[in-house]
This record gives sequence, structure tokens and C-alpha cells, in this order.
Amino acid sequence: MKRAAIRACGLILAALALTVFAQEMRPDRAIKYRQGLMYAMNVNFGVLSRMAKGEIPYAKDAATLRAKNLVELSAMPWEAFLPVSHAGGRTKAKPEIWQDKAKFDKLAEALQAELPKLLAATQSGDPAQLKAAVGRAGDACEKCHDAFVNE
Amino acid sequence: MKRAAIRACGLILAALALTVFAQEMRPDRAIKYRQGLMYAMNVNFGVLSRMAKGEIPYAKDAATLRAKNLVELSAMPWEAFLPVSHAGGRTKAKPEIWQDKAKFDKLAEALQAELPKLLAATQSGDPAQLKAAVGRAGDACEKCHDAFVNE
Repeated sequence: MKRAAIRACGLILAALALTVFAQEMRPDRAIKYRQGLMYAMNVNFGVLSRMAKGEIPYAKDAATLRAKNLVELSAMPWEAFLPVSHAGGRTKAKPEIWQDKAKFDKLAEALQAELPKLLAATQSGDPAQLKAAVGRAGDACEKCHDAFVNE
Repeated sequence: MKRAAIRACGLILAALALTVFAQEMRPDRAIKYRQGLMYAMNVNFGVLSRMAKGEIPYAKDAATLRAKNLVELSAMPWEAFLPVSHAGGRTKAKPEIWQDKAKFDKLAEALQAELPKLLAATQSGDPAQLKAAVGRAGDACEKCHDAFVNE
């Protein structure tokens, strides 16, 4: 019961935090915000992906920095998919995001669950582990992009 | 002696990490990368700034989330100020950045040193502490922008 109450408070506070953010966000700003973060994720993941494929040399510390950035960045863009922001600027986001927000949120959470594993794989110093973890994280990106992004 | 050796290794590894990143970064990508991150910092700081001024209601958890994002984001854009990236895309970065990189790096570090204090201030739940810390972080932004950004 106590745990349920704490959880409910957490959800209410999270909702409040989003509300304050939403007041600041015109649709064009929300679009630019999430695009900037997604681009930064893309760049960091790109380095890891090329490292996993052997196109650039494997370097443990470089890999760890990229994965750390990804873990941190991956928590940020989702709040900017505000209901009003399906239009109002150039965006590749499909309207389906707001028609099936639960599915979208689930896929976003699935990516966020993969990235700490990717970080652990980079810290292992084992290129094979990195390759496997990059593959799984890439799949998580792709699942959401296939459903919700006009590429 | 041992500590100096460890420090030297750290610097070499950091340089290697940057090198791997630099290989990935054409100037236009470096510019887009740092701009996306700077914009995200601007949005997060904007919420805190308006909260500090009383323009939007003070909310501890919302403030903490913004400050946490800022601490994380503020570590990321600097590596993308690559020597080649003073041109190659639309940028407000002044050439002075590459003429006095040591000063630029020092001001970037000064901002990064302020933001954990801003995070602590948001966690205090005290609007007066938030206001003071927002002021100091804003000053750190401004010092660098005044010297190095065409506004």
C-alpha cells in the first residue's frame, strides 16, 4: 500500500515536471529539441556501430564514452513528443505516434532498457560483446523508426 | 610519479576517444551535433531561468530534472568544436574559438563546474538558492557567448 502510494506520488511529480516543460514548448521548439537530441544519439551510435563492424578501430574508452552519452541522451527526447507537436515544423514523426502513444512509449522504453547493457558491453572491453549489444540496441532503434518515423 | 603516469594515460585515452569521434565528423555534422546539444541546453536552462524569475511556478522535481539534463548535456558539445569545423555549415561560432582554444576550453569548463551546483540548488527545494545558482550558471553561459558566439 505504502509502495503504491509512493509510486502514485512519483507519477504525479513526473506529470508535473512534464507540465512545466510543456508550458515552455511551442511545437516548433519541441520538434527542434527532440531532433537535436535524436541527432546526437545518431552520431554517438554511429561511432559504436562502425566500431562493431570493424570499420574503425575498436577502442574501449571511446566506445564507453559513446555509450554513456547514449544512456543519458536516451532519457531526454520523449517528453518533447507533445500532443500538439505532430505539426508546427519540419518533422519526420508520423501521426501514428499520437494515435498509439502507448506503443510508442513502450518502444522508447525498450531502447532505454538496452542502452545500459550497451554501456556494460563497452566496459567489458570485449569486441564480440560490443557487437552483440550494438546489434540489439540498433534493433530497438529500428523497431520504433519502422513504425513511427518517415525515413 | 605513479599518479602522473595515470594522468598521462588518461589524457592519451581521452585524445584517442576524440580521434575516433573526429573520424566520424565532417564539419557539417560537427556543427549540427553541437548545435543540437546547445539547443537542448538552452531549453532546459530556459525553464529554470523562468522558474527563478517567478514567471512559471517553482516545482522542485521539474527543476531537478532540468538541472540533471544540463549537467549531462554540458559534457558533450565541446569535442565537436573540431579545428576544421569553423566553417562548413551555418554556425554562429566565431573564428576566435580556434584562435584562443585555451580560453574557450576554460570557459566551457567553468560552465561545467557551475552546473552540479545548480543541480544541488534544485535539490535543496529552496527557491532563493535556485535563483542564485541560475544566476551564476547564466553568467558562465554569457561569458563564453560574449567572447565566442555571433548572437
